[in-house]
Amino acid sequence: MTEERLMLDKQKTLEKNYPFWPHLTDEEKKRLTENCVAKTYEKGEMIHRSEEQCKGAILLLDGQLRVYIVSEEGREITLFRIREGESCVMSASCLLDSIAFDMMIEAVQKTEALIIPVHVLHPVMEQNPYVGLYLYKAATERFSDVMWTIQQILFMGIDQRVAHFLWDESLHQGQEIAMTHDEIARYIGSAREVVSKVLKYLAEDGIVSLGRGKIRILDKKKLKELL
Amino acid sequence: MTEERLMLDKQKTLEKNYPFWPHLTDEEKKRLTENCVAKTYEKGEMIHRSEEQCKGAILLLDGQLRVYIVSEEGREITLFRIREGESCVMSASCLLDSIAFDMMIEAVQKTEALIIPVHVLHPVMEQNPYVGLYLYKAATERFSDVMWTIQQILFMGIDQRVAHFLWDESLHQGQEIAMTHDEIARYIGSAREVVSKVLKYLAEDGIVSLGRGKIRILDKKKLKELL
Repeated sequence: MTEERLMLDKQKTLEKNYPFWPHLTDEEKKRLTENCVAKTYEKGEMIHRSEEQCKGAILLLDGQLRVYIVSEEGREITLFRIREGESCVMSASCLLDSIAFDMMIEAVQKTEALIIPVHVLHPVMEQNPYVGLYLYKAATERFSDVMWTIQQILFMGIDQRVAHFLWDESLHQGQEIAMTHDEIARYIGSAREVVSKVLKYLAEDGIVSLGRGKIRILDKKKLKELL
Repeated sequence: MTEERLMLDKQKTLEKNYPFWPHLTDEEKKRLTENCVAKTYEKGEMIHRSEEQCKGAILLLDGQLRVYIVSEEGREITLFRIREGESCVMSASCLLDSIAFDMMIEAVQKTEALIIPVHVLHPVMEQNPYVGLYLYKAATERFSDVMWTIQQILFMGIDQRVAHFLWDESLHQGQEIAMTHDEIARYIGSAREVVSKVLKYLAEDGIVSLGRGKIRILDKKKLKELL
């Protein structure tokens, strides 16, 4: 692919995915297009760690990212996930001066992304209010996701949380969910022992069957009744 | 006070507290000034209920608001508080189309506020990006507060949470905190029995003394060590 063709592709991708694009000057469009960076993350790769410098706005072309927090004792809570066509502004949190908490971002699977680095995004954000409006609006949207997660964790019983998790995963992975009890516990912010207990209970009820590193959903109707 | 003088006072207050003010046209400034409404809320009054229509941007001139969520079983979690000179954009959540969770707002004490109603704010927000930028930025800032609260609830031990609460309240109320165990439990998202147990433990350690509907802090240094 020629350099020119590549630029055109990048511009089209940015234009399609960032609603502030029509409000940019030609100069601003050029700057973002020329300086955005294509990047591939491997499964499990860390994209953002609290103590590190922030990367910029990450637009997901393919794959999935998971944004989570970790306690001092290593307990994880998944806040939300970023999927294809969505962009992650949390990785540009240094630009959002009202965000003052630490979070981690990892690639759940192999992920292709287009990144607008912070040093490129920052001056454009300073001179064009539509860019900041977009970034803060996107952050507020995640706020809403996080509130949902929190209400689940704080207000729902652990069995309901496991049921919800299995249900959501089955929408992505199908009837067989390839995850260990430990992984599920980390995803829903609980302990492995607790998750194993709930899964055993679900298995005894004929809702799931348990295999090595996988859970098979046998009765979707019954599972749904638990939600 | 003459009508003209009142308008001038309102304009000054808005100008001082809303950073988007210099970006407004004269027409927009006039519209907001003429249509904002002074309002007094009594202690305990509900300002916003999830199912009700939203009020608008509430600027606190005096008093305090508490923003919280409630589970189906009635368990409350305080997300954050709004104090004098701060503004509450959550009460304009209908304008922020990325906010999709329910919350409640109550006046913790008698509160004086200046409200820009939704029907006034909306058209200005539509035509001026600085207004939306401000609102979403303010929402993001609250996001950050909420994350702090959540990390406390999820990751900290209950004794630490009680200690943190007493410490924070002592900064406002002084050495004697006029609250029941039940109230404290509701504020920190726990049960009364649990809070009573922790308080008894703190009392046995000589950190606090317990009275009817009040807690006296005896040893600030020791309390601080628990944080």
